[in-house]
Amino acid sequence: MRYELYYWPTIQGRGEFIRLALEEAGADYVDVARRPGKSGVPAMMKLLVKRIARPPFAPPFLKAGKLIIAQTANILLYLGPRLKLAPRDEAGRLWAHQLQLTIADLVVEIHDTHHPVSGWLYFEEQRPSARRRTKDFWRYRLPKFLGYFERVLHNNGDQYLVGGRLSYVDLSLFQIVEGLRYAFPKRMKRFEKRIPGVIALHDRVSKRPRIKAYLASNRRIAFSQWGIYRYFRELDA
Amino acid sequence: MRYELYYWPTIQGRGEFIRLALEEAGADYVDVARRPGKSGVPAMMKLLVKRIARPPFAPPFLKAGKLIIAQTANILLYLGPRLKLAPRDEAGRLWAHQLQLTIADLVVEIHDTHHPVSGWLYFEEQRPSARRRTKDFWRYRLPKFLGYFERVLHNNGDQYLVGGRLSYVDLSLFQIVEGLRYAFPKRMKRFEKRIPGVIALHDRVSKRPRIKAYLASNRRIAFSQWGIYRYFRELDA
Repeated sequence: MRYELYYWPTIQGRGEFIRLALEEAGADYVDVARRPGKSGVPAMMKLLVKRIARPPFAPPFLKAGKLIIAQTANILLYLGPRLKLAPRDEAGRLWAHQLQLTIADLVVEIHDTHHPVSGWLYFEEQRPSARRRTKDFWRYRLPKFLGYFERVLHNNGDQYLVGGRLSYVDLSLFQIVEGLRYAFPKRMKRFEKRIPGVIALHDRVSKRPRIKAYLASNRRIAFSQWGIYRYFRELDA
Repeated sequence: MRYELYYWPTIQGRGEFIRLALEEAGADYVDVARRPGKSGVPAMMKLLVKRIARPPFAPPFLKAGKLIIAQTANILLYLGPRLKLAPRDEAGRLWAHQLQLTIADLVVEIHDTHHPVSGWLYFEEQRPSARRRTKDFWRYRLPKFLGYFERVLHNNGDQYLVGGRLSYVDLSLFQIVEGLRYAFPKRMKRFEKRIPGVIALHDRVSKRPRIKAYLASNRRIAFSQWGIYRYFRELDA
């Protein structure tokens, strides 16, 4: 099956969690909005406004045969067993999905560090709020989230978060570390010693042959000042 | 099977989406932290800190036999077919779940109207930000979310959001309308004419015998100044 991924072509964003799973599995897929030529974003927007029975609310969404599936964690729930990146039994699938939804919650909080008040304002228009939010994020929220994943990893024998082999949740946690290193290089450097298991997992993922090749390819979009992770020096004090 | 629901005993919050599904189905369940006596919240906290293989990150979570399932939408994904409140086929289950995850996103944005900067600050310490966030929420975000559900409902024949019978998604959308009416009575009154289908769905749900009985019972916790929906007169201008 050739999967079609629909996501913004210039950012990693939420689409990256899907891209990493497809890449690790060596799946046959098209990143529709990134195809050369002019067919990209309009093709995606068309599916967002078209009168279809089960329309997506927002990108990313995946076309798999006749199915159109939206919501990042839902797409991974669908792809997981098919790409051999999640357990096959119901309890295992629910557990992997539960962790992925917790990562999704963390993603919202990461984004809100630089845009707490409104996505319709520039960062420069919400600076004091962003500073305050970022302070609480690093003091309370990130330690809680990553401390939790450190514990889950340790309970499961330190190698993988779920079961006895790599899952899409490991790939997503890798991406969280990547993003935090980009957006908060100084803070992250200090913080990493508190989560040695998560960092070791990140390093193992980065060395997997297909992930390594993907990261070095032009399919991997560079981090930028758009999307979830953005670097502002004053937030990285 | 007797289900055990673990959630904060004094608020509707995210637990309410689960309670509504269990109530509508007439399921056998215990709201553990609300049991009379002293066993409530400590029993919940114990499971949050206990060394178990698959620990929840936060309430709500559900104990179903040996399974412990967390994340509101994940719990409903599990309960849906069992309570006959979701389609049985995979495509239908994914679609219902996709809508539920979109409701979960909306819930975060509703909460952030009164606490955009930080949950560690009082409302009174983030007033200007809350006002700005609320303005954009009513101008851009809520119309986008509820306009989407209005469209999905209409595409599906106006009666239910998913398939040919009531699902947990209908119950959750009912709860969104309830909460918005509590938190923003004036704004909501004006807004409702733009979403007649959603409002009619809300009214049908409220008249279902088990939901009606539940809402009139002391099992339904009253809205308050805690949780997702809070009333601040200045945000309801």
